[in-house]
Amino acid sequence: MPVLDLQKLQKVCRLLRADILSATTAAHSGHTTSSLSGVELMATLLFGGFFRAKLDEPSFSNNDRLIFSKGHASPLFYALYSVAGKVSEQELMRLRQFESPLEGHPTMRFPYTEAATGSLGQGLSIGMGMALNAKLDKLPYKTYVLLGDSEMAEGSNWEAIQLAAYYKLNNLIGIIDVNRLGQRGETMYAHDIQAYEDRIRAFGWQTYLIRDGHDLNQVSSAFEFALQQTAKPTMIIAKTIKGKGCSIFENKEQWHSKQLSEEQLGVCLNEIGEIDHAIVGEVNQPEEIQPQISTGFFDAQSRFQFEHKNYSTKEAAGITARELGKTNSQIVVLDGEVSNSTHSDLFKAEFPDRFFEMFIAEQNMVGAALGFSRRGKIPFVFTFAAFFTRAFDQIRMSQYSDPNIKFIGSYAGVSLGKDGTSQMGLEDIAMFRAVQNCVVLQPSDAISTMKLMQQAAAHFGNVYFRTIREALPILYDQDDQFKIGGSRILKLSNRDRLTVIGSGITVHEALKAYEILAAEGIKIRILDLYSIQPIDVKMLVSLAFQTKALLVVEDHYVQGGVAEAVRSVVGKHAGKVHSLAVHKMPRSGTALELLHYEEIDADAIVKKVKELIGQ
Amino acid sequence: MPVLDLQKLQKVCRLLRADILSATTAAHSGHTTSSLSGVELMATLLFGGFFRAKLDEPSFSNNDRLIFSKGHASPLFYALYSVAGKVSEQELMRLRQFESPLEGHPTMRFPYTEAATGSLGQGLSIGMGMALNAKLDKLPYKTYVLLGDSEMAEGSNWEAIQLAAYYKLNNLIGIIDVNRLGQRGETMYAHDIQAYEDRIRAFGWQTYLIRDGHDLNQVSSAFEFALQQTAKPTMIIAKTIKGKGCSIFENKEQWHSKQLSEEQLGVCLNEIGEIDHAIVGEVNQPEEIQPQISTGFFDAQSRFQFEHKNYSTKEAAGITARELGKTNSQIVVLDGEVSNSTHSDLFKAEFPDRFFEMFIAEQNMVGAALGFSRRGKIPFVFTFAAFFTRAFDQIRMSQYSDPNIKFIGSYAGVSLGKDGTSQMGLEDIAMFRAVQNCVVLQPSDAISTMKLMQQAAAHFGNVYFRTIREALPILYDQDDQFKIGGSRILKLSNRDRLTVIGSGITVHEALKAYEILAAEGIKIRILDLYSIQPIDVKMLVSLAFQTKALLVVEDHYVQGGVAEAVRSVVGKHAGKVHSLAVHKMPRSGTALELLHYEEIDADAIVKKVKELIGQ
Repeated sequence: MPVLDLQKLQKVCRLLRADILSATTAAHSGHTTSSLSGVELMATLLFGGFFRAKLDEPSFSNNDRLIFSKGHASPLFYALYSVAGKVSEQELMRLRQFESPLEGHPTMRFPYTEAATGSLGQGLSIGMGMALNAKLDKLPYKTYVLLGDSEMAEGSNWEAIQLAAYYKLNNLIGIIDVNRLGQRGETMYAHDIQAYEDRIRAFGWQTYLIRDGHDLNQVSSAFEFALQQTAKPTMIIAKTIKGKGCSIFENKEQWHSKQLSEEQLGVCLNEIGEIDHAIVGEVNQPEEIQPQISTGFFDAQSRFQFEHKNYSTKEAAGITARELGKTNSQIVVLDGEVSNSTHSDLFKAEFPDRFFEMFIAEQNMVGAALGFSRRGKIPFVFTFAAFFTRAFDQIRMSQYSDPNIKFIGSYAGVSLGKDGTSQMGLEDIAMFRAVQNCVVLQPSDAISTMKLMQQAAAHFGNVYFRTIREALPILYDQDDQFKIGGSRILKLSNRDRLTVIGSGITVHEALKAYEILAAEGIKIRILDLYSIQPIDVKMLVSLAFQTKALLVVEDHYVQGGVAEAVRSVVGKHAGKVHSLAVHKMPRSGTALELLHYEEIDADAIVKKVKELIGQ
Repeated sequence: MPVLDLQKLQKVCRLLRADILSATTAAHSGHTTSSLSGVELMATLLFGGFFRAKLDEPSFSNNDRLIFSKGHASPLFYALYSVAGKVSEQELMRLRQFESPLEGHPTMRFPYTEAATGSLGQGLSIGMGMALNAKLDKLPYKTYVLLGDSEMAEGSNWEAIQLAAYYKLNNLIGIIDVNRLGQRGETMYAHDIQAYEDRIRAFGWQTYLIRDGHDLNQVSSAFEFALQQTAKPTMIIAKTIKGKGCSIFENKEQWHSKQLSEEQLGVCLNEIGEIDHAIVGEVNQPEEIQPQISTGFFDAQSRFQFEHKNYSTKEAAGITARELGKTNSQIVVLDGEVSNSTHSDLFKAEFPDRFFEMFIAEQNMVGAALGFSRRGKIPFVFTFAAFFTRAFDQIRMSQYSDPNIKFIGSYAGVSLGKDGTSQMGLEDIAMFRAVQNCVVLQPSDAISTMKLMQQAAAHFGNVYFRTIREALPILYDQDDQFKIGGSRILKLSNRDRLTVIGSGITVHEALKAYEILAAEGIKIRILDLYSIQPIDVKMLVSLAFQTKALLVVEDHYVQGGVAEAVRSVVGKHAGKVHSLAVHKMPRSGTALELLHYEEIDADAIVKKVKELIGQ
C-alpha cells in the first residue's frame, strides 16, 4: 500500500479547488459545489498511489478505469487531469464553451472519459461491465465509480449493486460522495451514511464508511481497504460537504448548479490559501498485461446451414449468435433472464464464460453492455423487444459513448399473439431509430437473419436487430446477399402496378397477397426492407418512380415506424407512400387473428392495393 | 382479525387449482406453474376475511386494491374472481382467446384489473401511488401487490420500496411469491427468503417470512401481521413451490409458460382431489367512505396574468400547475427531485399535501402517477424531457391502463445549452408519439403554455407537454384560443411563397427568419404547430395546397419528430414537406450556438427557404 505524501496531496487539493472555482466562474455555468465535495476522494484515488493508468495511452487495456457517474461533477473530473498535467489551465478556463472538449457533462470528446455520463444512475452499471470484462480477460485493472448520493435513488444502481455482488466483482469499487444535498434540497437520507451502508451491505457488498470525506488519511484508508482481496465489491461511503472550502456556499441549499461571481471567487480563493500552480499529480503505472483475444472472421454460414424447415427469426438469431461466437472471442452475450425464449441459451451452452445472465434488470444489462463495448468487446444483448423500452435512457446515453452494442429484441409485434400487449414490442423501431447512428435491422427468415447478424457484428456501432416468435418459411438462398442499408426485391415484373414494402413478418403477408392478386391478374412488386436504418434510399426512390405507389406494411405502431422512415427519404415522392400499421389497441389472440385485426395481413394488403389502383 | 374457515379455504384452493389447470390446458397457453404457487396466498387474502371490496362496484373509492405485478399469473387472478362468482367457468375456459377479456396478462378489459401488468417490476410503483392516494384522501383502503421473485431484480421495485418507506405507507402490503424458479431456471436468490428479508428490511420496511406459502395458517398470520398499524409498509415473503399441486411439474425447471396436455390434466386433477364447483369465496365489504373532492373549472387565466416580460415555457408551466391546482383538488404533482428547475416548486409551496417528491427515480414516479390516475387523480409529472426516457416502459404500459397522466418534460432540445447532450430531450417527441392516444403538445410562449395546460388538464388521457429552458417573448394575447389538435397561423399574406412550421423555440426562429426574408421582399407563412399529436390535419393539408412547400423546423432529432408527423397526415402533399431538425451530435454551448450548429435557427431557415423557392 502506498505511503501518503500528505503535504503534497493537500497542495493538490487546493489546486483542484482553485481550478474548479475558477473554471465554473469563467463559464458562468457548471456544478461547482458538487465538484468541491469530491476533491479529497478523487485526489487521493488518483494521486495517492492507488489508481494505476498510463495517462498517455487512455485506451490501454490494463489501465484502471474511473467513471464519474455523477457526471455533473465534471469540473472536478477535468481539474484532476489538469493537475496531472494533461489539460492546460487555459483549456480549463474554456469549460463548457462550444469548441471546448470540456463539456457540461463528460463526453468522448475528452480523452479520459470512459463513457459519457450526466443522466444519473448509469455509471455503476457501465463500471460493472468493465469489471466483468477484467474478469473475463484476466486483467488486474480495477474499476472505480464516483457516485452522487442523490442518484442512489435510481433503481438502476440497485440493479448494478445486486448483480455485482452476484458476480463477486471484487475489482469494482464504488465511492458515494454523500454531500447531503441534491439539486433542490436534502436527499432522502441526508448525511445518514449508515443508511447507505445498511442497504448496500444487505445486497452483499463490503462497505467502508468515511466519517469525514475531506480527511485524506480516512480516504486513503478506505482505498486500502477496498484493494484488499475478498470476494465482494466494495462501496466506500463518504460523508462530505457540498461546496467544501468556500464559506459562501459550503453546506448550503440552493447552490446546486450555481457559480460564483468574480468578486465571490476572490473571497473563496483567499479562503483556500496558497495555491501552487506548478504542482503535478503523479499517477502510478499499471502492469504491462494485454488480454489474449482472437478476432476472427464473422462467417457463420460456412459453419452452419439451416435445414429446410420453418424457423422463427428469434431462433435463427440464437443459432447465429452461437456460430458467430465461434469465430470471434470478443463477442459476449448478455440476456435478461429469458435465454430460453431468445435462444441465447445456445450461445451459453457453447461459451458459458462469455455468457452473462443479467436477470430481469434491463437497465443494468444495457449499461454493462456499454462497459463491455468500451473495453473492446462486442456485446450481444438479448431480451424481448418490448423490454428494451425499460432501458431507453441507457440506450439513449450509449449513443454518446462511441458504442458498439448489438441489441437483439425478440417477440416484436402483434404476431407475438396470446401473451398480449404488455409483451409486444410495438414502439421499438421508433425508439431505436431515434438513437443517432443506430442501425435498425429486421430480417424476414432464417437466412437473412444469419447474414444480417454477421453484418451487424462486423459493423462498429449500435445495431438493433428485431426478431419475432412465429416460425416462418425460408425465403432466401444461401448465396443471396444482404447488407446494412440494403433491401431485396422479391417479386418483380414489368406489369407491376405498385410496390408493397414489407419488413419481417409482413414480407410473408405481402407474398400471400401477391398470390391472391396474381390470381386476379394484378401484379405487384414486393420489397423486403430489412434495413430500416440506414435505409435503401436509391431503391425506394427508384420504386416510387417506377410504380404508382409504395404501400408499407409493418407490425409496429404508425408513429416513428417504417412508413415514416420511408417517407422521410423519398423526397418529392413522399405523397406516394401509403401505410398499413398497427393502429388499434392489440390484445391476446393468435398471430393471424391479430394481424387480421390490425389490418396488416394479406387480406388487408389485397384490399388496400385494390383501393390504391382504383379497382 | 378474521377467524379462518380452514376447511372452506382448502376447498377454495382446490377449485382455484382446478380452474387454473383447466383454463391453461384449454388455452394451450398461459403460465400455469406461476399461478399455482400463489394459490394459498391469494385465496387467504381474498377469502380469508382480509380483503375488503364491493365486487359489484370495482371502482368504489374505498375498495382494497389488488395488483398482480406478476401479471403472468393471470390464470390465478381470473380464477379468484371466478371462485368469487364473478367469472363463469365457461368464460374461464376461453382464457387468452381473441374475444375474451381474460387476456394473457391482465388488461382493463377485465373489470377487476386495477392496472394492466405484464412488464415486470411495475406493480409495486402503481400500488404505491394508490397507497399515497389513500393517505391523501384519508381513506382506509389497503393496497396489496403480488410480486414474483424474479421481478425483484428490477430496479424499479427498489425505487418503490425506498419511496414507500420514505412516505411511511403502512397501507401498502407487498407479497413476494418466492417460488424459486424464473423463466429459464433459478432466480438470483432461489429459495433464500432471508435474502429478500435482509434487503427489504434494510430499506425500512417491516417484513414477514412465510416458511411454507401453502400453509393457510401461516399465510393468515402474515396478513394479520401486515394489518397491525405501524408506520411502515409490509412485505410478506413467502416460500412457495412453482407448479404446486401437480407432480408433473411441481418445483421443476422448464415448465414456465407451459401447459398440460389433456391427459396430463387428468392426472393432475386427480392429484388435487375432490373439487366442489359450487363453492363461492366471500369477500368482505369495505367501509362506506367517500373522499371529499372538488373538481372545479380549469380556469387559471382568470386568476393569473403574465407580465410583459420573457418567460421560459418551463416557468410558465410551473405557474400554470399552481394556478390549476387552485381550481381542482384532484390535481397532484410528482417531481423527480428537480422542482426548482421545473418550477413545480411553485405548486409545492401552495399545496404541500398534494406535492410528492419522488426523488431521482423516474420509473417509480411514473408508476405511482398511474396509481394516482387510476384512483381518479390528475397527476402532473415533472422532470427533464430527457429523463422520461428512463420510464419509457412504464409510460408504454400506462397506455393500456386507461390512464390520465400529464407528463411535463422540461429542458427539451439543444436550446438547453451548456449542460450538454446528456440533459437534452431530443427523442422525447418520438417516444411520446409512439404511445397510442397520447396527446403531445409544445407551447411557444407563456400564454400558450397556460392555455394548453388547461386543455391538457381537462382532457382525460395521457398528455406529454414539452417545455424549454430559454426565456422567450410572449407571442399571444390573453384572448387567443388554443386547443388539442389545433395550430395557429402567425404570419399570413396572399403573397406567401411557402409555409414555415415551427413548434416551441423554432417558432421564434421562424419569426426572426420572417423579418429577414421580408426585408428582401420574400413573404412566408408561419404556423405554430403546438399540437403535435393529434395534429391539425385540415390546416396542414390546406397550407400544403396553398403554398409551394411546408418547411418543418424542430429542435428534436429527425426520427419520429414533427416533420415525420406532418408527412404522415398530408397524404399526396407529403412530398412538399421539408425538414430542418437536429442532425449532428450536439454538445455544450449557448442556445444560439447550438441552434445554429444544428441548422435550425433563423439563418438556416432563411437559407432553406431560398433554396426551396429557387432564389
